[in-house]
Amino acid sequence: MGVTEVFATDTLGQGALTGITVLDLGQAFMGPYCALLLQRLGADVIKVEPLKGEPYRRPTVRKGTEMMQFGLLNAGKRSVSLDLKNPEGRELFLRLAATADVVIQNFAPGTFDRLIGVDAVLDANPRLILASGSGYGSTGPYRSLRAMDLTVQAMSGVMATTGFPDGIPVRTGPSVVDFMGGAHLTAAVLAALVQRSVTGKGQHVEVALYDAILPSLASNIGGYLDNDGAIPERTGNRHGGLEVSPYNSYKTQDGWAAILCLHDRHWASLCRAMERPELIEDPAFKTGRARAASIDRVDAVVEAWTSTRTTDDVIMVLSDAGIACAPVKSLREVITDPQVAERGMLRYHSREDRDWWTLGSPLRLSDSPAPEESEVPRLGEHTAEVLAERLLLERSELEALDACGVTGTGTEVKDGYHGRSSLALVDTADS
Amino acid sequence: MGVTEVFATDTLGQGALTGITVLDLGQAFMGPYCALLLQRLGADVIKVEPLKGEPYRRPTVRKGTEMMQFGLLNAGKRSVSLDLKNPEGRELFLRLAATADVVIQNFAPGTFDRLIGVDAVLDANPRLILASGSGYGSTGPYRSLRAMDLTVQAMSGVMATTGFPDGIPVRTGPSVVDFMGGAHLTAAVLAALVQRSVTGKGQHVEVALYDAILPSLASNIGGYLDNDGAIPERTGNRHGGLEVSPYNSYKTQDGWAAILCLHDRHWASLCRAMERPELIEDPAFKTGRARAASIDRVDAVVEAWTSTRTTDDVIMVLSDAGIACAPVKSLREVITDPQVAERGMLRYHSREDRDWWTLGSPLRLSDSPAPEESEVPRLGEHTAEVLAERLLLERSELEALDACGVTGTGTEVKDGYHGRSSLALVDTADS
Repeated sequence: MGVTEVFATDTLGQGALTGITVLDLGQAFMGPYCALLLQRLGADVIKVEPLKGEPYRRPTVRKGTEMMQFGLLNAGKRSVSLDLKNPEGRELFLRLAATADVVIQNFAPGTFDRLIGVDAVLDANPRLILASGSGYGSTGPYRSLRAMDLTVQAMSGVMATTGFPDGIPVRTGPSVVDFMGGAHLTAAVLAALVQRSVTGKGQHVEVALYDAILPSLASNIGGYLDNDGAIPERTGNRHGGLEVSPYNSYKTQDGWAAILCLHDRHWASLCRAMERPELIEDPAFKTGRARAASIDRVDAVVEAWTSTRTTDDVIMVLSDAGIACAPVKSLREVITDPQVAERGMLRYHSREDRDWWTLGSPLRLSDSPAPEESEVPRLGEHTAEVLAERLLLERSELEALDACGVTGTGTEVKDGYHGRSSLALVDTADS
Repeated sequence: MGVTEVFATDTLGQGALTGITVLDLGQAFMGPYCALLLQRLGADVIKVEPLKGEPYRRPTVRKGTEMMQFGLLNAGKRSVSLDLKNPEGRELFLRLAATADVVIQNFAPGTFDRLIGVDAVLDANPRLILASGSGYGSTGPYRSLRAMDLTVQAMSGVMATTGFPDGIPVRTGPSVVDFMGGAHLTAAVLAALVQRSVTGKGQHVEVALYDAILPSLASNIGGYLDNDGAIPERTGNRHGGLEVSPYNSYKTQDGWAAILCLHDRHWASLCRAMERPELIEDPAFKTGRARAASIDRVDAVVEAWTSTRTTDDVIMVLSDAGIACAPVKSLREVITDPQVAERGMLRYHSREDRDWWTLGSPLRLSDSPAPEESEVPRLGEHTAEVLAERLLLERSELEALDACGVTGTGTEVKDGYHGRSSLALVDTADS
């Protein structure tokens, strides 16, 4: 069994979480991403949505079509539509929770307690793991603050450290805070499942976005402390602590190449690749400390070389020389990247009037096969199926619940995500 | 049991991973962060380092002191120093692996197979979980490429989507790729532990940095697809899909405030807070779609208000109005932030001639107490202790291994991390 064979897609067997049921009350990214990762590990994930659908089931502002990102985060789950504000809806949720292993929620502070309650759900099922995602956690002075990816980027130093010394603080393009939160929340759920395998008991786990992003600032915080605050907070595309050089994006004839040399031997290889062998022994560049002190000159030397070549040429030459480098790819190039396709991280699907994209999982387990291709659930598509299967409700009961507005069964519901063609009906961007 | 009481620091009981042993071969961030999270869950984490120490045990370029970030990533672990290139050292490692539950490695492609081998380590212990972190994974066309946080940011679209439409691609200040990788690798290890609790068997799990960062681009990829590529890749501090407005950082008298309004009701609250109630019914601003179409005007209106006030004043008024907002904090403000302190995410320690900082864990489990305050292990500090405890080696054997250069016991070793005072001896920045 070699490394290259272990993760082949034809691996047989059960998933790591086969038999585990997850109720996903998540919204937007943090909760839904956690539930997505659990689904890809083999869990049965039931997305429990309000009658109007999760807020991210909304049409795009410009074209009014369904948002692709909803599908990216939710394909492979089942959708149950339930009004938690209705006492009967809440009761149904608690009965579902009694049959489940995990409940995930990332409502605004106070909302879950108002709708359901931590005690109520854990009393309903002592083996249950309740996973709460929030902006700042349930303790500390910020615990009541509303938070989104942007505001936590502002609060946590992500923005302060992103951008150029002479420019303004910059948010990251990707939603790194939300997804860092979701990945950590997944780890917390799984740790509680490990603990349950010993104790037989569930528990409440929580992850705060603010806590989850802080460790990623280790080199910024470390650099600040090591230099007594005497280096800029933002260093552009240079190393955060200005400790490594070369380390930057360098202009090429047709774009940019990211290049760094951690060790002197890499620098020597780079000098040879640039056909500047005389620089290897130059005291201004010979050691890491010398290059850090001559950072402007190093960058000028490297860019003088890259700017006469195409990005592909630079990458080919430097990869062959064993130097860490990469093209700065456009979003279009990433979406069509052969590595992304090979790893199944992004897949296009279409059938009849719908088309959608799905995400793969970064979690690769040699003995836990990835689930098969998955669809994006329509709102309430599985309400009847799940309530019949788990609570043994009969057709007449299901119809009565629907008629009273306690549940939504997809076929009845006019709002929300119904596939591309029907979304023009909906204007919920600001509901 | 209410939400605010669950996570008190005096929670009693065993950790979720009490009794689990982890061998951490990790370097820099991805592997060491994974091991750190497992340590904070109660695992016994043994950091296995070469005789010269992990590459991040190196002095800072400017001052020559130990790097704070090494302590941030490794406090609470034990350090065993072992030469894996020596056949006896490799044999000792395999014997240790036979007593362990998890091995973590994030060497460059091919290195682990050359030093140890996937088969060898899993043969030595069929219950072992081997966790491999890498840049691009063990499959696909990029599988052999060297990767660092910077180069994966370039390759994955993180840089393409960060920055301003009229500016160049920007790397994020924090090492979001490395830590996203580490958080996912932790989830993969825990999923395999869950699976082992059913099957009794270990397995090989892997996480690629490139896979781990891709989901965080969901809204950029979705926005690109939804708009047929007709919006800029980089939108500065505005919403990535230009779907939400206001959504930006706005200049104040003394800094910046991040503000966003997802719904019309938030916009209405903002108009009242700005004492501009007439804007609520203005057709140019009334709906989300209208505001997205008038994004420049919306931003001008909001900044006209924020720029006459201090950041604190803006945040106080808008928080009271229930609007998601945050100050753009400097790194110094983050390090001294009361919420960071209250959550224990960053702690300062000093004793005798050493001082160090430690990270808390974003994973909060109500029934799994956080470990006590922890120290940064000196290189090889626990070599003798661990080998005596796990392999029952005797003093004479330990001395012979040290004498032959198979192991390092800390007191003998002259290189690497020995606390601040001794580091001036070392010049390993480019070893």
